[in-house]
Amino acid sequence: MRTSRLEAFCDGVFAIAATLLVLELRVPVDSPDLVASLIALWPAYAVYLVSFMTIGIIWVNHHTLLEHCKRVDRRFLYLNLLLLVTVGIVPFPTALVGTYIRSAQWAAAALVVYGVGALLIAIAFSGVFFYATQDGRLTDDATIARRVRAEGRLFPIGLGAYSLGIVLAFVSPIASLALYALTALFYALPLLPLSRDLARREEPLADEAADRAQRGRDRER
Amino acid sequence: MRTSRLEAFCDGVFAIAATLLVLELRVPVDSPDLVASLIALWPAYAVYLVSFMTIGIIWVNHHTLLEHCKRVDRRFLYLNLLLLVTVGIVPFPTALVGTYIRSAQWAAAALVVYGVGALLIAIAFSGVFFYATQDGRLTDDATIARRVRAEGRLFPIGLGAYSLGIVLAFVSPIASLALYALTALFYALPLLPLSRDLARREEPLADEAADRAQRGRDRER
Amino acid sequence: MRTSRLEAFCDGVFAIAATLLVLELRVPVDSPDLVASLIALWPAYAVYLVSFMTIGIIWVNHHTLLEHCKRVDRRFLYLNLLLLVTVGIVPFPTALVGTYIRSAQWAAAALVVYGVGALLIAIAFSGVFFYATQDGRLTDDATIARRVRAEGRLFPIGLGAYSLGIVLAFVSPIASLALYALTALFYALPLLPLSRDLARREEPLADEAADRAQRGRDRER
Amino acid sequence: MRTSRLEAFCDGVFAIAATLLVLELRVPVDSPDLVASLIALWPAYAVYLVSFMTIGIIWVNHHTLLEHCKRVDRRFLYLNLLLLVTVGIVPFPTALVGTYIRSAQWAAAALVVYGVGALLIAIAFSGVFFYATQDGRLTDDATIARRVRAEGRLFPIGLGAYSLGIVLAFVSPIASLALYALTALFYALPLLPLSRDLARREEPLADEAADRAQRGRDRER
Repeated sequence: MRTSRLEAFCDGVFAIAATLLVLELRVPVDSPDLVASLIALWPAYAVYLVSFMTIGIIWVNHHTLLEHCKRVDRRFLYLNLLLLVTVGIVPFPTALVGTYIRSAQWAAAALVVYGVGALLIAIAFSGVFFYATQDGRLTDDATIARRVRAEGRLFPIGLGAYSLGIVLAFVSPIASLALYALTALFYALPLLPLSRDLARREEPLADEAADRAQRGRDRER
Repeated sequence: MRTSRLEAFCDGVFAIAATLLVLELRVPVDSPDLVASLIALWPAYAVYLVSFMTIGIIWVNHHTLLEHCKRVDRRFLYLNLLLLVTVGIVPFPTALVGTYIRSAQWAAAALVVYGVGALLIAIAFSGVFFYATQDGRLTDDATIARRVRAEGRLFPIGLGAYSLGIVLAFVSPIASLALYALTALFYALPLLPLSRDLARREEPLADEAADRAQRGRDRER
Repeated sequence: MRTSRLEAFCDGVFAIAATLLVLELRVPVDSPDLVASLIALWPAYAVYLVSFMTIGIIWVNHHTLLEHCKRVDRRFLYLNLLLLVTVGIVPFPTALVGTYIRSAQWAAAALVVYGVGALLIAIAFSGVFFYATQDGRLTDDATIARRVRAEGRLFPIGLGAYSLGIVLAFVSPIASLALYALTALFYALPLLPLSRDLARREEPLADEAADRAQRGRDRER
Repeated sequence: MRTSRLEAFCDGVFAIAATLLVLELRVPVDSPDLVASLIALWPAYAVYLVSFMTIGIIWVNHHTLLEHCKRVDRRFLYLNLLLLVTVGIVPFPTALVGTYIRSAQWAAAALVVYGVGALLIAIAFSGVFFYATQDGRLTDDATIARRVRAEGRLFPIGLGAYSLGIVLAFVSPIASLALYALTALFYALPLLPLSRDLARREEPLADEAADRAQRGRDRER
């Protein structure tokens, strides 16, 4: 299977899930004070931002993974479908948190659901990742496979952070949301100016992999 | 017509229909017990999962079919448009089942509608499939056409399963939903570890077909 | 500008507008008789079908036009944007008709709005079409340009049909909707078995044009 | 990273954000006078048009920028993600203006929010633009980089116009909306007949850039 159509479908689901988030920002109706109502919506804006960035960063990482793959098989497609199911559901926990984060009674429940959603995404992404890189199943080159898998060491951090966020929800819902935001930033980190060195060291791998992926695609044609 | 733009449009409809499903998961408002309300939403989650997987698996099969086609004609486009109409409507029966599956009085009606929707998809997909493979109309190669058509023997199973699901709706709505879920899994089966043999036997065909399809596309350029 | 990215954006808008239509099919809530309520929704299903097919057929024709274009310029992009604005709004008149077609008092108004929307699409499409084919502006080949423009003779039929539909809305809203459906079918006609001759005569043009378009694209690279 | 997948994701977000706007056009329910209600919706139509055109024009400019880029790096991806966040939120201020523009008390607030949204888009786009063109970071060719950057002189106009729109909101909300519409038209200007000269002078650059971009892409393969 050509990876291009898989990418088109995944990009579609990622882009739609991210853009549907806006529908959860509901215009206040019959508000006696619109300005106050708009300001009171701040948790909805915050969780919109966190969810959009999370989906965007998953997209970047998903794209990077697919660039390393010279082919995909049917089992990969189904694991990937599970990932899409979990990404596609994001607008629901996002709306839940936007609605309940300021509720004294239910904020914890909302953030637990959000954290469980994030955890399911992380687990599904790990599944896709390890299936693709294990035993050089989808990437021929052993060197690349080893280096890509090395990046997999970052996954426990994500799984840990989301688990911690779930626990934190019971103590402080806002801190829990902040942790989800930080986790998204953490995965974006290699891009920030601070890590220029890291990026440079990473560049040749990416280029090399792109070259090989392209050659793989050419061959598969 | 290049198949690439057809794929882009179809992928768009598939991805959007799948992602819109989440809008039917409505955040409980003014709930006295949010946790209980969220748990009470389980049928909505279940049907979200079944519908998303069903659309995803149709996408995989649709993609496989198009890989075998070296060209598409206008009549194919219109049959395909009918398929998209039936896939695009999926969020409606999904919402219906999510809302009424626990209603003693109306669960059967909701699942009958769901089954009729699934049946229409199966019929439309069969139409597209048989039009494309009949008389080597869209695939030049007789061997491939014969082998692809052989896969068509699976269609009566889907048609039968959905019809059974409609009947079952009157007896047990939950069993009916479970049957729809199993049917989705059945079409995904060639991917599961159990059927490694089947997959292996299938692989060369897929590769061969991809080769020919590519050559077809090159020629058509 | 490469036509491929323009196609991706247009396909996106077409696919989303078509798929959003389903959101106007609202699940009946607190209905004393769900079956009766679902049957009473038939106008919503009918207009869903008409709108989906209309968008699908515009997509097919838009795609055919772009295959003939060897390049697009910025003015084309903006005319095309106007077309997308009119296609993107389709879910609104669709919902209007679905809601009001059985209202004795307001069905005419709803169908007038629907007809005006369809008319705006036809006008915008004509604008894109004549800009692209006039003076061989976007298609170099004079023969192709002449033959493509000859297809433009069909436009007055669409403009006339939609205008008639608007007038008919005052007499019989259902007949008006039927006319919109027939217009969609009319534009799909070259695909039906009856017109095999027409299709055959058309085929070589399409192939030739695709060849030239491809060569154009190659050159523009 | 290949720019093609970045384009697919961005096009997705742009197309969805533009098409979701229609969901804010709500069909009047239980209206005693449907015609009057539909006419009273005119601000919603106007702001739908302004927002759709604004997103469409950002899409055109974004596409032009990416054509000049021979590669994108991860930092570019994240700046671009910020742009997508701001574009994805457009349906919210659009709905706000559609709902409140005729409210004596809250129209100003609605248009301030709309202007702030537009300003954030303009700032994010400037960030993407200057990052991509600075120091020939993403475009190798110094001549092209200089000429592309020259277009950047237009940005202060957009930033100024949106800031003025925010101030104007307090005086006349309608004038403020008109200014946002004019700003969209201003960025579309190079396409209008008047500026044929400008377009002609621009053409060779675009072609040249496309050539180089293509060659860049070929090389990166």
